[in-house]
Amino acid sequence: MNPNEPIIAPATGSSVAAIAVIRLSGTGVIEITQQVFDRKNLRKSGTGRVHFGRIRDRAGIVDEVLVSVFVSPQSYTGEDVVEISCHGSPYIQQRIIQLFLDLGVRMAAPGEFTMRAFMNGKMDLAQAEAVADLIASDSKSSHEVAMNQMRGGISKQLAVLRKDLIRFSALMELELDFSDEDVEFANRDDFKMLIQNLKSHIQPLIDSFEYGNAIKQGVSVAILGKPNAGKSSLLNALLKEERAIVSDIAGTTRDTIEDVIVVDGIKLRLMDTAGLRETDDVIESMGVKRSISNALKSKLVLFLYDRRDVSLDEIYEMLKPLFDKEIHLFLIENKIDLHDISEEFLSEEFIQKIKNHFVIIQSFAISAKNTSQVASLGTSIAKYVKSWHQEDAQVITQVRHLNALQSTMLALQAIEQGMEMEIPGDLLAQDIREAIRELGSITGAIEIDRDILGTIFGEFCIGK
Amino acid sequence: MNPNEPIIAPATGSSVAAIAVIRLSGTGVIEITQQVFDRKNLRKSGTGRVHFGRIRDRAGIVDEVLVSVFVSPQSYTGEDVVEISCHGSPYIQQRIIQLFLDLGVRMAAPGEFTMRAFMNGKMDLAQAEAVADLIASDSKSSHEVAMNQMRGGISKQLAVLRKDLIRFSALMELELDFSDEDVEFANRDDFKMLIQNLKSHIQPLIDSFEYGNAIKQGVSVAILGKPNAGKSSLLNALLKEERAIVSDIAGTTRDTIEDVIVVDGIKLRLMDTAGLRETDDVIESMGVKRSISNALKSKLVLFLYDRRDVSLDEIYEMLKPLFDKEIHLFLIENKIDLHDISEEFLSEEFIQKIKNHFVIIQSFAISAKNTSQVASLGTSIAKYVKSWHQEDAQVITQVRHLNALQSTMLALQAIEQGMEMEIPGDLLAQDIREAIRELGSITGAIEIDRDILGTIFGEFCIGK
Repeated sequence: MNPNEPIIAPATGSSVAAIAVIRLSGTGVIEITQQVFDRKNLRKSGTGRVHFGRIRDRAGIVDEVLVSVFVSPQSYTGEDVVEISCHGSPYIQQRIIQLFLDLGVRMAAPGEFTMRAFMNGKMDLAQAEAVADLIASDSKSSHEVAMNQMRGGISKQLAVLRKDLIRFSALMELELDFSDEDVEFANRDDFKMLIQNLKSHIQPLIDSFEYGNAIKQGVSVAILGKPNAGKSSLLNALLKEERAIVSDIAGTTRDTIEDVIVVDGIKLRLMDTAGLRETDDVIESMGVKRSISNALKSKLVLFLYDRRDVSLDEIYEMLKPLFDKEIHLFLIENKIDLHDISEEFLSEEFIQKIKNHFVIIQSFAISAKNTSQVASLGTSIAKYVKSWHQEDAQVITQVRHLNALQSTMLALQAIEQGMEMEIPGDLLAQDIREAIRELGSITGAIEIDRDILGTIFGEFCIGK
Repeated sequence: MNPNEPIIAPATGSSVAAIAVIRLSGTGVIEITQQVFDRKNLRKSGTGRVHFGRIRDRAGIVDEVLVSVFVSPQSYTGEDVVEISCHGSPYIQQRIIQLFLDLGVRMAAPGEFTMRAFMNGKMDLAQAEAVADLIASDSKSSHEVAMNQMRGGISKQLAVLRKDLIRFSALMELELDFSDEDVEFANRDDFKMLIQNLKSHIQPLIDSFEYGNAIKQGVSVAILGKPNAGKSSLLNALLKEERAIVSDIAGTTRDTIEDVIVVDGIKLRLMDTAGLRETDDVIESMGVKRSISNALKSKLVLFLYDRRDVSLDEIYEMLKPLFDKEIHLFLIENKIDLHDISEEFLSEEFIQKIKNHFVIIQSFAISAKNTSQVASLGTSIAKYVKSWHQEDAQVITQVRHLNALQSTMLALQAIEQGMEMEIPGDLLAQDIREAIRELGSITGAIEIDRDILGTIFGEFCIGK
């Protein structure tokens, strides 16, 4: 397989639209395009130029198009790249792509353009992976994390750590070369400090995965409560807030996925607690139980109640199954527009009784009808999720990175233990190399297995 | 309303994809883009340049994008145009569009970019209308017709005819100015010739609408026959042919619309003749009747039979309801792999009996299993549809154009009659002006009502 052979793929959405973009990359794509395009001097005009003209196949004019030319290495992939902006008819796209296939260009595999960008040193592997995250990003927070990773945030941090480790490793290897002479080029105390330093940087990254993953996938939230506590009105009120923001532009995710909302840039994945909607008394308790088993899968539980319809003992019984499960509890009094709330409902004694069984408890009073209260509840939930993570700190979102960092951590621990036990330098050097390799695998600084690359880029869109 | 106020719209499909393009047009769009883009000299670099850089809003970097700049009048709309090619996340598109809305740009109405192209003289109205047809084109023939119209095919022809008429009209008006003096600047015989000439050009255009519309909407085809004659296997065989062509590229229309196939560049809209699928004898005849009523709505009927299962009398009875309805009949013998076909089945006498009741009759022998026979049947159907229309002749597809041409025709007939009856010159001049106006309305050479423009461009995609 020729690594620079010309490839082609549609790069924009497949629906009928005003325009569509078809992307080509590889050796000769500018010349191949020139063969079917009626404006001269595509290459001669230089990189970053747009040309208006006609594409023809044997049957005649296929379309009037804009052709953008990017001359290697000044392109996304680092190769010669041509982007054809044609009318957004799937038929026209098909004719154009077929024309290039007939000229020996082949269909690109998903992610192949970005894979080439990586192969040609335009970005490292962590940055390349962030491109897919960026395209999939659907909230402010997931966008921020992906953008930071794509701009090299994690890569820079890891590169610095890895460089320190490599420097030390070199000294260790030097020692091994002179092992007969019992010299010590690498100061053991400095090395212990370095390992400590590495661990103190890597552990937060490992810990950030939980947040990063929540940001990327959305945070599981269960809304619990007796029937008529107002779950669905709360849901609608939260949704309405969001709808207003996204309504102008088509194609946002909201319509297709049930009960996923974005509040203050944080995606919340609202668990189905349909059981609570049953009204028959016998089924009620069953419904609550089912909802509770759902709640146990969530980190965040919004417990909704109407003080006229529930006693503290009842609430206690409903919360009991959630005790000691590392759950973050939001106690939300609803319908405060309908009754007197001057008297405190949640007694100090009640709070004390449940306090230690949850990671945190926050209480709110809302009326689902009052949007400003609902909005501030949403803000509080988002703020709370954001508090899981220190602002501006690096966040990882890829399982592959988590695994590599965890392996690095194990290798660092092995090094520490080895030093305690004063194991021979060559064994220590092996653990150090392992840590260097694992850190390097994240950014692709080391040779990455073709299969692994295939898996990473196989999850991309076609055309990227 | 400022006619050049800056507008913005997403121009590519709404699904998540590798990239998405957002388009801006109007006064100041280059400067407005410059405010949020970190590469300098957007305007200074000139038209047709692509710039790589970052778009920022208050919250930070929104995306790394390609910005293409087109300086007025060298652009699609004739105004300053900016195209932003960003990562294909609906969230990112939303952030970018929101950013520009905050800067005073407004969302474009459907077709507004093309409407501006028309307003600014970049294309005439018929060409602008063809842009929408081109985007919607999903077969070789509909693509060809739209492309021809967009490239000005009809416009040129109409402009020539209209010019002749205007020249004559001017002479007529001159006569009216000198009406006291009884001079004749406009030779009546020449004028009669001109009217004849106009009619001989316009009538074919009017006639072409039937073909143009069939091309655009697809040709209605009914497949008729007794149960088990092989209707669905024929359908599948035709589909299989087509599937092989389109399978490579996602998003072609086939998957979404039931029983629409493209054969040799002609879209066939296969009528639902589900009744024929019933097997119970009592229901059979009902089913056939229902199918026949469907067939009556089609111009083209494929009548399928298995000679072992049907008599000529039966076929005659089934065809009888279709007599004298301007139907084009394809008699197709199926399952020729299963029996001896050396003997002629359709007798000369039978053919004579039905011949004059149909526009045309063609007969075929196929086995739905044999793809080459099915393909050649498909080719024959396509060839036949194409024969409705003289190759390279202009074709109209818009009802608006048909109406204008028919009105022109009426005005021309009125002129002819007026001349026969030697009506006063000023009355004649009125009919001539009417014909000129109607011809002009097609290309927008005359002032077109805002409401009509709204209707024309309202059917466009957003972003075009």
